[in-house]
Amino acid sequence: MFVVVVYDTLAERNPAILKTCRRYLHWVQRSVFQGELSAAQYRSFTEAIKHLIDPSYDSVLIYRMQGPHMVRTETIGQKFTSDSPVL
Amino acid sequence: MFVVVVYDTLAERNPAILKTCRRYLHWVQRSVFQGELSAAQYRSFTEAIKHLIDPSYDSVLIYRMQGPHMVRTETIGQKFTSDSPVL
Repeated sequence: MFVVVVYDTLAERNPAILKTCRRYLHWVQRSVFQGELSAAQYRSFTEAIKHLIDPSYDSVLIYRMQGPHMVRTETIGQKFTSDSPVL
Repeated sequence: MFVVVVYDTLAERNPAILKTCRRYLHWVQRSVFQGELSAAQYRSFTEAIKHLIDPSYDSVLIYRMQGPHMVRTETIGQKFTSDSPVL
């Protein structure tokens, strides 16, 4: 499946969230990751995220599609690169 | 078409971006909007965004799908409401 993840988490938790997202997905914008995951990888990823966040404050939004061919992506403005200095 | 928009813009431009996004879409996370747009609405929306952002700094990422049935959405943690005080 093709997955897009957008997180809005307390700044002090961002590095851990980022690290977990990078283990599974590609970084496409400051707090946005995307990529292909198997069902098992998806379960493992969401379990890892559940352990990292504070559900009373943080929010992680996940969109799942059958594959990348189901979606067209457009960027207006800066194309993000994972070398970008922002966190 | 079903559209998901994630923006990463300079704070001083956020209110204008937010206002434009709200005119076309539903607010689903701090800087994430989604909704159904016609092709004409999509063109009008992206033109408005292009006029608002500084393309040398800002980034607006847009995912387009045929319809909301192409995508499954999951939120881990806080469900966002547009009453939330964050900008």
